[in-house]
Amino acid sequence: MNSFPNELLAGYRAFMDGTYKQQRNRIRELADKGQTPSTMIIACCDSRAAPEMIFDAHPGELFVVRNVANLVPEYAPDGRHHSTSAAIEFAVNGLGVSNIVVMGHGRCGGIKAALSGGEVKLDEGDFIGKWMSQLAPVAEKVASAGVMTDGERQTALERVGVRQSVNHLKTFPYVNDLVEKGELSLHGAWFDISTAELWIMDHETGDFVRPEND
Amino acid sequence: MNSFPNELLAGYRAFMDGTYKQQRNRIRELADKGQTPSTMIIACCDSRAAPEMIFDAHPGELFVVRNVANLVPEYAPDGRHHSTSAAIEFAVNGLGVSNIVVMGHGRCGGIKAALSGGEVKLDEGDFIGKWMSQLAPVAEKVASAGVMTDGERQTALERVGVRQSVNHLKTFPYVNDLVEKGELSLHGAWFDISTAELWIMDHETGDFVRPEND
Amino acid sequence: MNSFPNELLAGYRAFMDGTYKQQRNRIRELADKGQTPSTMIIACCDSRAAPEMIFDAHPGELFVVRNVANLVPEYAPDGRHHSTSAAIEFAVNGLGVSNIVVMGHGRCGGIKAALSGGEVKLDEGDFIGKWMSQLAPVAEKVASAGVMTDGERQTALERVGVRQSVNHLKTFPYVNDLVEKGELSLHGAWFDISTAELWIMDHETGDFVRPEND
Amino acid sequence: MNSFPNELLAGYRAFMDGTYKQQRNRIRELADKGQTPSTMIIACCDSRAAPEMIFDAHPGELFVVRNVANLVPEYAPDGRHHSTSAAIEFAVNGLGVSNIVVMGHGRCGGIKAALSGGEVKLDEGDFIGKWMSQLAPVAEKVASAGVMTDGERQTALERVGVRQSVNHLKTFPYVNDLVEKGELSLHGAWFDISTAELWIMDHETGDFVRPEND
Repeated sequence: MNSFPNELLAGYRAFMDGTYKQQRNRIRELADKGQTPSTMIIACCDSRAAPEMIFDAHPGELFVVRNVANLVPEYAPDGRHHSTSAAIEFAVNGLGVSNIVVMGHGRCGGIKAALSGGEVKLDEGDFIGKWMSQLAPVAEKVASAGVMTDGERQTALERVGVRQSVNHLKTFPYVNDLVEKGELSLHGAWFDISTAELWIMDHETGDFVRPEND
Repeated sequence: MNSFPNELLAGYRAFMDGTYKQQRNRIRELADKGQTPSTMIIACCDSRAAPEMIFDAHPGELFVVRNVANLVPEYAPDGRHHSTSAAIEFAVNGLGVSNIVVMGHGRCGGIKAALSGGEVKLDEGDFIGKWMSQLAPVAEKVASAGVMTDGERQTALERVGVRQSVNHLKTFPYVNDLVEKGELSLHGAWFDISTAELWIMDHETGDFVRPEND
Repeated sequence: MNSFPNELLAGYRAFMDGTYKQQRNRIRELADKGQTPSTMIIACCDSRAAPEMIFDAHPGELFVVRNVANLVPEYAPDGRHHSTSAAIEFAVNGLGVSNIVVMGHGRCGGIKAALSGGEVKLDEGDFIGKWMSQLAPVAEKVASAGVMTDGERQTALERVGVRQSVNHLKTFPYVNDLVEKGELSLHGAWFDISTAELWIMDHETGDFVRPEND
Repeated sequence: MNSFPNELLAGYRAFMDGTYKQQRNRIRELADKGQTPSTMIIACCDSRAAPEMIFDAHPGELFVVRNVANLVPEYAPDGRHHSTSAAIEFAVNGLGVSNIVVMGHGRCGGIKAALSGGEVKLDEGDFIGKWMSQLAPVAEKVASAGVMTDGERQTALERVGVRQSVNHLKTFPYVNDLVEKGELSLHGAWFDISTAELWIMDHETGDFVRPEND
């Protein structure tokens, strides 16, 4: 049978009895006035790393793109479909967000694949290998750090990937303009899906550090 | 200054004190054993339509792609980067999900743009016009339905878009194989961001209907 | 003038009025019966990483070696003076400890020097360069990981150094014998001198992880 | 099983709930600014003689080397690894300490071995005999002082050892230079692990005396 998953219907009813009842006015107002999120988050599809959960966000607060391994491609307008680039353009030029956060996370299956491990092989399949190949140059460097464990290399590439994506954001001319004018801030973050530690990218050094009054 | 948004840090602390404290064991176990979500959701970036909220989902339950207007492109392997296709491949072949839900929603800014309205003009930016052009043939037909109001046309295209995306899913050979074997189900849904009504796509007719015991 | 530092004398008086008064009986008993610490700790000289502070240890509990960067040399009896090896022999054969913990820490000046940074240059001086050269092969590999930041390389080498030292412990025949008999356990740890996070080395993978019910 | 010692984890939690909570700001500042200890202490590994305890020292105050019997070797650069000499070089040239304290203590197992007693035989193992042989010439003289008791000979050698180590410090050219310029002071101390008496070496006579207003 082909019926809509029961657990989703049950969850929907829980939402209606809980969050919707409590926030009904706010939700209706948001629908009428339109969304004005101040933050765009570019996150991974992983079922353990939902940005709304991590930041306890309410409806209307976060404009969220999710793709495998939270990658931002370089600005490359070529007349083709670019899902993530389109969303960035929509958020920056259409909604006028003030912050873009690229958020990586631990034990990322896409990153693991880029280091040639895990559930997915990059050279099988039609798309995942190509998608992750955006990280290939840095993945190769990280993979060759022979004295590090598999886990350390994985964490390293997860963070290197966030840094690369933040840098790619600056290749979008309108993003860069707004950053230089001080009207838009770019951020990197990394979330440990086990301990739930949040690490923030330092803008000067690129290092990931725990937020201060955490 | 360029510091990490305070509201996100405050939200993170609320998450740590609440959800994480309550679900710590489950979350840690998920991190150790790996994710095994049974459902992939393809949803919109809109800040008012987070799938985890609508389905009251816990960590580990939903593998989530979010792009502008929740579009699935046709299967078209051409050696280029395809964000959404890569995620579908990862979910189906890597994680073995049993359900894929394409979820549209009301007052969608991307759909509005496709009907030549709203915050974004399709012929200005570099990417959003191209991205939404995937809906151009059907958008044109809906736009020309002269007796319908703007709001009706908008809802119509939101639902037509979901139907098209579900059909595009079947163009992926491995998706189609699994559907035919009965191992994978494809679903469409539409969420009214104001009244919070959930509408489910009927597999036979393509109509959107309220779930039965709602 | 050459007099004994006043702050040490003041501290000594505080110790006499506090800890000594409270633990006088235990301390005297320890003096009479001899020490029977169950744990040896090999730690760094750094003033911010005293093992007794980190583990809130009482007199008699920890047998502590401290050298720059908490290095354990390979077993190499050659008729010369070996400070750390002598202490290991004393702890294992003389005192019969059950655990040896190699404890690294963040922002280690010795490790920084091994990566060619910080207060000390390895090629000046008579001894520090030679001492740190025990890490040279792995330091070179870590240093060449071009996509990682200085801070990430520093943390990586701090942890790689602990792993190497734990491995070097096993080159001591009597250490290895006791480990195989299950009478001695070897451990690695890493302490963040800022956030005070303690990370424990996993025996299987070599990864550093937060202790579970932390 | 090979798990991290429970008493250390319990101690760590006590540290986090106590000292770290109280001194968090100071500790974080120390991490950021780097350590600037004014005193280096060369002490014994003995679990009953931690310098931080005896001098009630806070994080950042003492740069601490610990080896068996708190020995300083003579300056002898020969292209080999010298743990203690490397630490002295680091403290003096890298950190610019103002004081070096060599601290002996009562009932020292290393000293006992040098007098042919206690848990460890100098002619058995590979390293401890060689290490303590640095005291052999003076140990022989003390051992032959026939009218003294074993206990008196032990205390005598503990103090003779401190004097020798202070003298060895002066064989390091940069140490001697700074001492002559009045920029660095060398000190000897001896701690009774039972009564907790602290004795200070007089610079003129070499005698150990109780500090004045003790």
